[in-house]
Parts: sequence; structure tokens; C-alpha cells
Amino acid sequence: MYRAPVDDIAFTLKQVAGLGPDLEQGRYGDLSDDLVDAILSEAGRFASEEIAPLNLPGDMEGARWNDGAVTMPKGWPELYHRWREGGWNGLSGPGEFGGQDLPVMINVAANEMWSAASMAFGLGPLLTMGAVEALDKHGSEALKATYLAKLVSGEWTGTMNLTEPQAGSDLAALRTRAERQDDGTYRIFGQKIFITYGEHDITDNIVHLVLARLPDAPAGTRGISLFVVPKFLVNEDGSLGARNDVFCASIEHKIGIHASPTCTMIFGDNKGDAAQAGAVGYLLGEENRGLACMFTMMNNARLNVGIEGVGIAEAAYQKAKEYAQERRQGRHATAAGADMSPIIEHADVQRNLLTMKALTAVARSICYACANALDRARSAEGEEAKTWQERANLLTPVAKAFSTDIGVEVASIGVQVHGGMGFVEETGAAIFYRDARIAPIYEGTNGIQAIDLVTRKLPQSGGAQVTGYIAELRADITALRASNSADLGQAADRLDAAIDDLDDATGWLRTALSEGRMEEALAGATPYLQLFGLAAGGAYLARAAVADTGAARRALCRFFAENLVGETAALKSRVIEGSESLTAARAALA
Amino acid sequence: MYRAPVDDIAFTLKQVAGLGPDLEQGRYGDLSDDLVDAILSEAGRFASEEIAPLNLPGDMEGARWNDGAVTMPKGWPELYHRWREGGWNGLSGPGEFGGQDLPVMINVAANEMWSAASMAFGLGPLLTMGAVEALDKHGSEALKATYLAKLVSGEWTGTMNLTEPQAGSDLAALRTRAERQDDGTYRIFGQKIFITYGEHDITDNIVHLVLARLPDAPAGTRGISLFVVPKFLVNEDGSLGARNDVFCASIEHKIGIHASPTCTMIFGDNKGDAAQAGAVGYLLGEENRGLACMFTMMNNARLNVGIEGVGIAEAAYQKAKEYAQERRQGRHATAAGADMSPIIEHADVQRNLLTMKALTAVARSICYACANALDRARSAEGEEAKTWQERANLLTPVAKAFSTDIGVEVASIGVQVHGGMGFVEETGAAIFYRDARIAPIYEGTNGIQAIDLVTRKLPQSGGAQVTGYIAELRADITALRASNSADLGQAADRLDAAIDDLDDATGWLRTALSEGRMEEALAGATPYLQLFGLAAGGAYLARAAVADTGAARRALCRFFAENLVGETAALKSRVIEGSESLTAARAALA
Repeated sequence: MYRAPVDDIAFTLKQVAGLGPDLEQGRYGDLSDDLVDAILSEAGRFASEEIAPLNLPGDMEGARWNDGAVTMPKGWPELYHRWREGGWNGLSGPGEFGGQDLPVMINVAANEMWSAASMAFGLGPLLTMGAVEALDKHGSEALKATYLAKLVSGEWTGTMNLTEPQAGSDLAALRTRAERQDDGTYRIFGQKIFITYGEHDITDNIVHLVLARLPDAPAGTRGISLFVVPKFLVNEDGSLGARNDVFCASIEHKIGIHASPTCTMIFGDNKGDAAQAGAVGYLLGEENRGLACMFTMMNNARLNVGIEGVGIAEAAYQKAKEYAQERRQGRHATAAGADMSPIIEHADVQRNLLTMKALTAVARSICYACANALDRARSAEGEEAKTWQERANLLTPVAKAFSTDIGVEVASIGVQVHGGMGFVEETGAAIFYRDARIAPIYEGTNGIQAIDLVTRKLPQSGGAQVTGYIAELRADITALRASNSADLGQAADRLDAAIDDLDDATGWLRTALSEGRMEEALAGATPYLQLFGLAAGGAYLARAAVADTGAARRALCRFFAENLVGETAALKSRVIEGSESLTAARAALA
Repeated sequence: MYRAPVDDIAFTLKQVAGLGPDLEQGRYGDLSDDLVDAILSEAGRFASEEIAPLNLPGDMEGARWNDGAVTMPKGWPELYHRWREGGWNGLSGPGEFGGQDLPVMINVAANEMWSAASMAFGLGPLLTMGAVEALDKHGSEALKATYLAKLVSGEWTGTMNLTEPQAGSDLAALRTRAERQDDGTYRIFGQKIFITYGEHDITDNIVHLVLARLPDAPAGTRGISLFVVPKFLVNEDGSLGARNDVFCASIEHKIGIHASPTCTMIFGDNKGDAAQAGAVGYLLGEENRGLACMFTMMNNARLNVGIEGVGIAEAAYQKAKEYAQERRQGRHATAAGADMSPIIEHADVQRNLLTMKALTAVARSICYACANALDRARSAEGEEAKTWQERANLLTPVAKAFSTDIGVEVASIGVQVHGGMGFVEETGAAIFYRDARIAPIYEGTNGIQAIDLVTRKLPQSGGAQVTGYIAELRADITALRASNSADLGQAADRLDAAIDDLDDATGWLRTALSEGRMEEALAGATPYLQLFGLAAGGAYLARAAVADTGAARRALCRFFAENLVGETAALKSRVIEGSESLTAARAALA
């Protein structure tokens, strides 16, 4: 069973991602080192002892739909309420509405633990946190007064209603329509799909954030508005009123996250309490500016999806390691005696476990560094704030895509370490393989993250942001080299070579973009993102190895450098030379 | 829906794997080119039109257990009987017992199609074919007379009963016991797990091949005997007699292959028709020599598991390509007009699809080349037979592990191409991701395949086998270079570099083995196998590009060479240098 790696998380936050210096500088008010430890430790306890035990039973039972209602697995509503009563939902929420105003870093670390304990459980709150952010940033005072405190406390949950059957990655195609009413409200009509926690029996009310189009809106993405559409209308005194005309028509039958209801929502089918059809909605932000609001929210959501990949990978690693320590088969090559060895003594199993552990550590570092950049951007001003915001922008697609890709890979290796038992659901390794698969898809597929990284993030500040970032990575390798000793083998050389590859590929892509060779740049986007993640991850492991002279982190850094980072050479040539062969190979797809 | 790629299969068999020259030389009697095409084409029709439509419904319904009986999904028994009545079960079975004595290559190609159409369906017959092989090679005349014709026709099915809870990869630990009876039969007592198609309602009888230990047997693997244990005893006239004391206690709840019952079998629980407890068993081969019999059978089974990886990958590729052609989202970078483009026009989706296609083609080539080596070994004599048998031995672990690894990878990319729809079961992409995951595990985990390749296959004929094989691969690149033109870009150089890497890693491993550095060799086994698969695969794609000057195969070869084969450099250093860092990194697993 999952045990939250609180020490590792705290170390990564403080020694690798920047929280340590931040705390020393008092960047987050009176947040102290001790308080950080206390919060992480209590979150770890809750995740390990309360959430994790309900993960597999919740998956087996699943969320069930019947006639518009969704019943959650046994014990899940109670679990949720214990969780929100612990204040976990409002960790980074606005203090004005009952939140704790803590840094994003703390919330992301907590999210890692919720996701690791149960991705299906952690998903609901992620959506609520997104709704909180959107309302806090873009909502009128009236909307905030009505909804924010309840969402921050978790008394109600929130959703994001974006996708429609014909509009997934391309939201320009969305058709859900909003009609203006005389009283300043709107009526929403349409169908949304893939709505996470769109309906459930955990809370009294659900606050849907819905993208829709006004009748006179321009075509495309500049004609989309964002609306708040509560399941139950809220009376002036805060009590619940009429049932709004929004209903869950069905839930999806999916590979994983079975306890997380993925809903088809129908707006305006005249099934609510009102005589008039149409779901009552309240404009959030300005008309036709809904996508900008939604993207603010999605950016943060992307980091939180990345951390799901980390959580799943950590949980899969722990499970596989535990099994490998207990399961005995065969004899280790140099074992004495006739007894079977624990399989963790076999070199091939060690390679698998170390690969899992190293990839998890790398992804965690990238996600936390991204969170740190967000926190610094928020706590700084002027040029400094801009630089850190750009840093967060740069790292967000990498955090999302690299972490969720390795989530799938690590979960798959985890099944493999279990042998036949891994394929059996009751063992508890399979669930990670199934759950992990959605994360590279939602909140913008990983292909779209790669395109975002290349086309929108590399050009930031005329390339200065990415160049500066690479220089920082290089400094970590230099520091590692300075601390070098025999135990690090070829680590510094290998990590430096990876940074060279990143540098070269970055330069090539920036030139391609500046020369208008967009098609070539797009063809190299995915290998570039993978290269970026490996090279950056190597530098973070180097930073960890310098900060902690214990054998374990240094050995992990070396293992990564000598076994996993070497792929960057092939990835670089895929970026630089791949596009021509890709174009040529279209014939093979005919 | 899956359409068997009959032309591609025929091309790969004949132009890449060696069937073409074999047919010209009349190596397989009167088997003609036309007959091969007719068989493949009819198998393709059956797979596409009859099996594939029942795959997803069969998965959704699953095999169901109740009180010892297993009910197969609706339509599956009828499907099976139509299939066996087509003569497909006996394709490579012995002619003396009603089989068609066709080359392994033809059977493997057919198995690819059955697996692609439905892995859960194809699995049952694979086990039956294994039982046929074991009985044919090692059975007494009496056993053959009783069982072989029924198994060859598929009127009865066969199973392999190896695994016990404490004995998976390490069969030395098995405990199922066999007691000698006065009449020359044995009584079997024990529990076996993970028995594929151990119980079902498709055929009247099931013939279990069971590994068990005699009371006076030596410990370890030299004390294991193999028994034939039918579900129903067979009377002298061939009619079915008493219910034997072997029962299915439960079936597993698994990630995938839901329609394939994975059974726990209990032998000797005194539930049969006889007054005396113990399942009646008949010795197959000699006492205490059971493992050798079983391994003959497993070797062939390994190739057939490899081809499952190819089948799943092909099916996943077709599904993803079809979706990418139909689904419209966004506009292609240089598209005119305002309409959304089919996503197949986006570079990142093209990269995904080409990666799927290239990896599938590579794995298919390796599997078919392995089958060809088996056929040549069987149809040759003396030194030639030995050389080809060694070739088959060399390629079997690569065919098994490389193909099933890419099966998982390609199925995962297939889900990704579908976006959110891929995660929904009804779409039909998810099933490949779930089903594919077992293939790297069963019939010897891929880690064990890698160890087998390095420790038992590289030393064959003092290294001459692998050296000769690498020289053949090199000749393919030379031929490609000779045919070179601008459309092949850097393909020949890249493929040559991969062969260099294979050569270096092979030399290093052979030296390590000869110097007794076993632990280091084992640490490099898995990356070596991956390197072997990529380098060999590149040569086969080169061979295909030389044989077919059409644009598609040449472009695919180039895409593979410039995008996928480059990993061999990193894999080589993982083999050669990885073991030290692996050893050092044990600290990180503490």
C-alpha cells in the first residue's frame, strides 16, 4: 500500500525546486520550514491511511449512473468529507474566502499525494480548484460571494465543461449556445462530453463552468463565453433553490479511473424545475472572452495533471518494489545456498525498479520547479515577476507531458515486475497502468503540449527565457562536476552531453520558427519535449546529488546519467532531421 | 474494424523472411506461391469478417465462472467451431493425424491474423497447438492414437499447466505431485494457476498437459515429469468416459483478454466420478524429463506470443489510422480555408502513426524470420539443419520480447491518437492497450527472454551463429546503399551505425561471459535485446526497401532509420557501461 514519500517530497521542494531559499528569504510571509513539514506530513498521513485503502475497492465498484443520478463507491462521500474538513481543498485557495493562501508548491505536493493514493479521488478536487481560480480571477463580486466560499471549503464541487463531440482539442468548433435573458442571466443549451465529476452524490451542489457561444458571437475562438451554471440555483440567503436544467445523460465506460464519473451533460433539455427550458447561467468575465479565462485555469490544471503522472509513478514504484522484496524466484547469479532469492536481487529487476524510481524523481523535480516558478511570479513584481511567469509557462507543457508519459511507462514497468500477478486486478498494480493512460490525453494532449512548448514558449522574450533556463541547468552540472568523485562515474559528462543536445535542438527550432518553417518545427515538437524533460531532469538530479551527499541520491543521479539520459542524442537528431523523413513517409500512410 | 493486411504479410514472408526463395527451391514439397496466397487470403477473410466483430463484445461480456463451469461469451463457441471446421487449427499439425503439415511460417502468419482480430480468441488454439507439438514429439503411440487427431482437428482443446503460486519463472519450485498406479497410470494432486483456457464450454473435452513431481524425484528441475490429464477420460472406443478429478476453482479478473478464461485448476480434490481421489494422468515422455518436453513446446509458444504482439500492434495501428482519417480537429499548418483538417494531416499525428507502422513492420519481420529458420531447420539435414535451428534459437527471445514490448507501446500510442475517445472502451482502441499488456509477461517474461538471449543464445557455436547473423544484416544495408538515392536520405548510414552498435555490444557481452562476469552480462541483457531488435529490424526494412522499389516501403525504411533506430547508441552504452552504475545504484533501492 502507498506510503507518501514525505521526506523525498520535502527534499525535492526545498533543495531542488527552490522552496528552501524562498523560505529563508521569507517570500511566502510567515510560512516556515516547520509548517511546511507539518503540512506535508499530515497530507501524507491522510493520503496513505485514509485515501489509499479505498482506491482499489472504489475502482472495482466504480461510479454508477442511474436515471441521471450518479452513485459514488461505498465510503467515498465520507472520505471526501473527512478530506475537505481537514482543510485540504482550500490549501492554495484565497484567504478571503476561507482558503489558506499557501504557495502552489505546497498544493502541488499535496496533489501528488492525493493522486498517488487514488487518482480517481484526487481528480474531483482538481476541478474544484480550477473553478476557484477562475472565479477568483474573473468573477463579479456577486458571483464570488455566492460561490467562492463553498467551493474553497469543498462543500460544493466544480467542473470544467469544455469538450463537445466535434470540439475537443479544437474548441473553435464548439456549438453550445447561450441566450441572453432580460434579467442579465443567460440560458444555456447544448451537450458537453467527458465532464469529470459532472454529477455525483458527494455534495449538495455542483458548480459547472461552461463554455458556450452567444447568438451574435463571432465565429471561432473569439466568440466563446464562459458561464457559471450551478446544478441547483442558489437563493439570496445562500440556500439551494430550483433544480437547474442541466443533467447527466450517461457516464463513460473507461480504461481506468472507474470511480471518477466522466459525464455527458445535457443543458437545456427542459428537465429542470423552471417552466422555461435552458440551464440558467451567469457570465464569468466578459462576453466572448471565455477562452482566455478558461486557459488561465487550464494552465494550472496542466501542472496538476503532470503531478498526477508523478503520483501514479510513485505509487507504481512502491508497489513493484514491495513485491520484488517479497517475491522469491530463481537464484541470484552469485547467491550462495539453494534458496530462491527475492527477485529484487536479480539485475534485470533492479534495472526496472531503478528506471521507475529515476523517472519518477525527474518528473517530480520538473513539476515542483514549475510550481516554484508560479509562486515566485506571484510573489514578485515587475521584471522579476515576468521572468518567473515565463519560466512557469516554459515548464508547464514539459511538466504535463513528460510526467504523464513517464506515468504510463512506469506503471507499465510496474506491472511487468509483478509478472503474472501484475495482470490480475486484485494485486493492485494493474490500476496504475489503467488510470495512468488518461493523463497524457486530457487538459491538452501531450502532442499539443509539445506544440505549445515549441511554438509559444521557446519564443518568449526573444528566446532569452529558454536560453537562461538552459544556462541554469548547465550550472547544476558544473556544480556536480566540482563535487565529482569516483562514485559518480561518467555522470557529469553524460548530463552535459544531454544539455548540449537540448541547446542544439533549441537553437535549431528557434531558427526554423524564425524562418517560418513551421511544419518542420511541428514535426520535431514531441521529440523535443522528451529531450527537454530528460536534459532538465538530469540537471535536477545533479542538483539533488550535490545537495545531498548520501549515497542514494548520488547513485540515482549516476544511474539516470549512464542509463537513461543517453536517449537525448537520438532525440536531437529526430528533432533536427526527422521532419524531412516524416514528410517523405506520408506515402507509407496512404 | 481490423482488415488483415494480407499483401503486407505475404510480402514480408516471401521477400523479407525467406519464403520466396524457399518456394522456388521447392523446400516445402508442392507448396506453391499461389497456394500460400490463397491460404493467407482466406485466413485474412476469416479473421477480418468472422473473428474481429466478436472481439469487443466478447471482451465486454467476458468469460464467466460459476460453480466450476466457465461460460464463454455469446457466439464464441460457434465462432470457434466455424474456425476449426475451416481447418485452421491443424494448419501446421502432423498430416498423419489430420493436420496440413504446412510450414511454421504459414501458421505464424495466420496466428498474427487471429491475434489481431482477437487476442483472447487466438490464445486458446495457441495452447492446443503446443499440446499437439508435445504429444507428437514425445507421446507414446497409444497417447497419440487417443488424443492427437482430436487436438489437431480442434474437436478438443489443449492446455499447459506449469505455474503454481510459488513457482512461476522458477519451475524448480513446483510441488504438484504425481503418484504411480499399478496400471501404469498416475494420479495427480495439486494446484495450478494462470491456466489459459483451463475450462470452457466450447468443446466436449480438454486435454491438460501438467508438470508434476514423482515422490522419488530429485529436487529441482530434474525431478519434474509431464502428464496428460484429460478433463474426461477417454474410453477405448474413443467415446468420453468418467469425469476426471481436475476442476476449475476460479478464473482471474484481469487487465485484458477478458474472454480468455485464466483458470486456477485443482487436481485431486476428489470431485471426479471415480471413488479414488487424484486426477488420472498419463506420462508424456520419460519420468523426470518433463521440463525438456515442456521447453520444446514453450519455444514455439514464445514465437507465437511474439506474433500476438505484432497482431495487436497491427490492429491498433489500423484503428488509429482510420480514426485519424475521419476525425477533424484544428487546421493543418499550411491548410487553406477555414475547415478543420483530418488529424492525420497534423505532423505529430503522422509521427505517431508512422512510429506505430514502422515498429509493427520490424516486429513482424523478426517473427517471420524466426519462423523461417524453424522451417529451414526442419526441412534441412546435418550442419544446415543445426545452423538454422540455432538461428531460430537466436531469434526466438527477440521475436518474443521485442514484439510484445512494441505491442504495448504501439497500443498505447493508438489510444493517444484517439484522444479522449481512446480512453472510452466502446471506441475499441482501449482493448488493445489492455490485452497487449500480458504478452511481455507470459511464456517467460521479457526479462527472462533477454537473459536467455545473452547467456544461452550468444554462445551458440562459439559465437559463430550470432556473428554470421550480424554479417547477414550488414549485407542488407550494403544492398540498400547500393540502391541508394536521394529518397533514402541518411537511411543506410543510420542503419549501419545500428549494426555497429549491435556488433560492439555483442562482442562486449561475449567477452564478459567468457571471463565469467555473469552479473555484468545479466545487467545488460534487456537493453541488449532491445538493441538487437532495432538493429535487426532496420536491416529487414532495408531488405524490404530493396525488394520493393515502391515509395511506401522505402519511405518507411527511411523514417525508421532517421527516427527510431538512433536509440541503439544509448542502448549500447547501457549494455557496456550500465552494469557498474546499476550495481552502484542498489543503494537507491534501499
